[in-house]
Amino acid sequence: MKNAIGREIPETIRGIKKFRLYGGEFTDLPKHTGTARTIRISLPHTNKILSSIEEAIEKTGLKDGMTISFHHHLRNGDYLMQLVVRAIAKKGIKDITIASSSLSPCHDFLIDYIKEGTITALESSGLRGSLGKFICANPSILKKPVIIRSHGGRARAIEAGELHIDVAFMGVPTCDRRGNCTGRTGKSAFGSMGYAIIDAEYADQVVAITDNLQDTPVFPCSIPQSEIDYIVVVDAIGDPEGIASGAIRITKNPTQLVMARYAAEVMEKSGYLKNGFSMQMGSGGASLAVGMYLREKMKEKDIKGSFGVGGMTGIFVDMLHDGLFDAVYDAQTFDIPAIESIASNPNHIEISASTYANPWNSSPIVNDLDVVFLSATEVDVDFNINVITDSNDICMGASGGHSDTAAGAKMSVIMCPIIRGRLPMIRDHVQTVVTPGDSIDVIVTDRGIAVNPKRQDLLEKLTAAHLPVKTIQELQHIAYSLVGRPEEVKLSQDPADIVAVVEYRDGSIIDVIRKPIFD
Amino acid sequence: MKNAIGREIPETIRGIKKFRLYGGEFTDLPKHTGTARTIRISLPHTNKILSSIEEAIEKTGLKDGMTISFHHHLRNGDYLMQLVVRAIAKKGIKDITIASSSLSPCHDFLIDYIKEGTITALESSGLRGSLGKFICANPSILKKPVIIRSHGGRARAIEAGELHIDVAFMGVPTCDRRGNCTGRTGKSAFGSMGYAIIDAEYADQVVAITDNLQDTPVFPCSIPQSEIDYIVVVDAIGDPEGIASGAIRITKNPTQLVMARYAAEVMEKSGYLKNGFSMQMGSGGASLAVGMYLREKMKEKDIKGSFGVGGMTGIFVDMLHDGLFDAVYDAQTFDIPAIESIASNPNHIEISASTYANPWNSSPIVNDLDVVFLSATEVDVDFNINVITDSNDICMGASGGHSDTAAGAKMSVIMCPIIRGRLPMIRDHVQTVVTPGDSIDVIVTDRGIAVNPKRQDLLEKLTAAHLPVKTIQELQHIAYSLVGRPEEVKLSQDPADIVAVVEYRDGSIIDVIRKPIFD
Repeated sequence: MKNAIGREIPETIRGIKKFRLYGGEFTDLPKHTGTARTIRISLPHTNKILSSIEEAIEKTGLKDGMTISFHHHLRNGDYLMQLVVRAIAKKGIKDITIASSSLSPCHDFLIDYIKEGTITALESSGLRGSLGKFICANPSILKKPVIIRSHGGRARAIEAGELHIDVAFMGVPTCDRRGNCTGRTGKSAFGSMGYAIIDAEYADQVVAITDNLQDTPVFPCSIPQSEIDYIVVVDAIGDPEGIASGAIRITKNPTQLVMARYAAEVMEKSGYLKNGFSMQMGSGGASLAVGMYLREKMKEKDIKGSFGVGGMTGIFVDMLHDGLFDAVYDAQTFDIPAIESIASNPNHIEISASTYANPWNSSPIVNDLDVVFLSATEVDVDFNINVITDSNDICMGASGGHSDTAAGAKMSVIMCPIIRGRLPMIRDHVQTVVTPGDSIDVIVTDRGIAVNPKRQDLLEKLTAAHLPVKTIQELQHIAYSLVGRPEEVKLSQDPADIVAVVEYRDGSIIDVIRKPIFD
Repeated sequence: MKNAIGREIPETIRGIKKFRLYGGEFTDLPKHTGTARTIRISLPHTNKILSSIEEAIEKTGLKDGMTISFHHHLRNGDYLMQLVVRAIAKKGIKDITIASSSLSPCHDFLIDYIKEGTITALESSGLRGSLGKFICANPSILKKPVIIRSHGGRARAIEAGELHIDVAFMGVPTCDRRGNCTGRTGKSAFGSMGYAIIDAEYADQVVAITDNLQDTPVFPCSIPQSEIDYIVVVDAIGDPEGIASGAIRITKNPTQLVMARYAAEVMEKSGYLKNGFSMQMGSGGASLAVGMYLREKMKEKDIKGSFGVGGMTGIFVDMLHDGLFDAVYDAQTFDIPAIESIASNPNHIEISASTYANPWNSSPIVNDLDVVFLSATEVDVDFNINVITDSNDICMGASGGHSDTAAGAKMSVIMCPIIRGRLPMIRDHVQTVVTPGDSIDVIVTDRGIAVNPKRQDLLEKLTAAHLPVKTIQELQHIAYSLVGRPEEVKLSQDPADIVAVVEYRDGSIIDVIRKPIFD
């Protein structure tokens, strides 16, 4: 079967009972209710504090076949998942699905637990590191393909009942004795708890695991006590070095700087850079450099934006501090300056993944974006974007908020170099589609700028401004002229070898990732 | 049928299909899931701002037989319900159920709309004023008895699907163009939006009606844009005079001062007044005077509490400001000093009605209360409490958080004078039970203190401290010796004459209010 962007989707997918094919950005509009939250209760003056993760596993009645969730705010510093999975394995519990908001290289340890059958399924925004390579080489070791969801799509799936969480295990930097949680303070502070908020609302049971139990009430509170069933105190939920870096330095990579400068020019000449505008920047090198250039332009032209949103970084909070935005919305905080900002600035606003990007609510923040700057691992001549696999079809990225923000923003700008290593990044067809070309307005490369033909208005403006506008085919040609046309990776067509299904944010399948075959 | 406290409940109640009888404070523990929230969606860059309430009625598709909700944070200054109901009536829509978190004398206008059939049912925490008298005299004018719920019980009923809201109309003191709402600022500021939060989550559609539309992002945000479907701007949502008073003066009423002093003594001698304690005070005269005495005691003894909760008033925020509590939780803000406090103090924490008092979540704040001070319209020798009807069985009060806090707190202290006017307030059986005697520990009157016999520990402590401890029968005898035994009000036994059912916080029926018959 082919979906609306011509991707071949198998008629049946092992382990997945029912699925829908991607039919377009806003075609699959729901006319139904969500899933019911499980009613939980506790008697007055119940002590929620348990002695260990083992006890939490016993109290929650965790058993074979259940789904447990994690958030990825601890990023590559996360200790928590390992503590929990080790305890589960020790108890001999098998066939667990891990539904984490994302996975980082620190989760490579899962390979061992997958091999022994403790973990049999993964649902995540991202898949990378040795774990990504391992699953790509051995897809059938899991009972179903990995389900890749965007941040908004995950919130939607939980609220719609497509992802049911039996027990949420939640790393909490500071928690009081009644369960009020924040990510703002504590030795493992990571800022916004945006991804965890939805798990706390919808999981059957929620275990907060903290390395900073506070006697006094926690405020501001990211998740209230009314959604926390148990509390466990451990020595450390994460490694501060891996949780957040210091202020991320602006890139010195000349390719990234060229793209960033072009992107800032696109922003200016597009007409969107005006008082009251809103934007999202990613946390990659080129995105941050765009911030640097835009900051200068905004000051020079005395322009004040309305709001910023996204993975929050130092550059964005500097702009907030400079008064260049009224407020920033934060579902995930990336570096120490941004963590300090959310802890102290009331106009640095914590939001849930649902408020951020869920396509099935009254209006996620992404719906009001003017412009988003995004990166890509590959783009193609139909403006489709890949951010999850490399050109060898190995999982090494994450869906993140990519398709969410691209669908919401008036102008979505992708920054991607035309070649990486010896490979062209502008393909006839990207290896995996995460964001459909319909959501993309401009692709900025180091060798020129391509405008989606559906945006003739933008094409005219950018051309008139003497920016290096080219067709996407021209850019592809330049890439080919430098490194040649790439060989296609051979992919297994065996249905058992589907590594992952990539859900669009509305839950339909936009693509599948197949096992690559290397000679 | 008799329920667990011996109240006679009819086998069938007109207009109510299914009901449960009260069986005890924590007997009706749910083993099921709640109700599903309706999935709503809006396309990017949709303008939510409508031109009028009439347009909102059209867009939401409001029609005969639906249920609409309101919050009562505008108290007796509320203009909003009248604006909405008038517009509904003008369109000829009939048979509407009003599910307001409470009703005030300013809602007496509903009588006209009930008479003409626009409004056919009421669900509320309180019923008072001419409306209360009218319904008590004409119960069968409504298609079912008024359903009286506690604040926690209402949140529970909404989450459990027992109260389904088709459209929530929400008075919002400040709202931005995307729908982010706060009660902290604006000419109609009322503080916490605690009761509205749950309506915004569960209603099929939500209309925010504001008299202060702000161009810049609203923060902190009580209800996020992701839960607001439409916005309507009106000249005024309420009358500031009726919304909140200035700093409420401490009572000079000698009876109230005597009770307050006794109550503060009970607090001290009970052993609960120690570092880290928590408490709730009401907003009545005696409660506020307790605050005054406790403030002195805490300073004198250098005691610091953990948290305060409740309808927030100036006296409580003064104690917060003095450092006598780490934080206060606020589901409803009563006076201007408290509104100023929640707008400026981060440790003055806004909470939803569910986090405050819903018995069916992982732990409402009330579950962690040490002590609550509450008032009563009547008490009885079984320690049952009435706060909804007067001795003539006329509705003139509200369930509020009474049964919620009394069930949660380790010690519930009721303050009630032994006589009011020429009537004894200690009855053989209160006219209407709102809070069962099992939840009550101490009744403080102006003539002595009665301890619930189940609390022998407290009885011993208070007696040893030479407080004027008496049995509840002795107190009743004093009252009778002053004003005589009261005549019982005659009540209609016709099932059509049931004025209201009083739900206990778990949704079971603890009592019914019957039409009084006056000769």
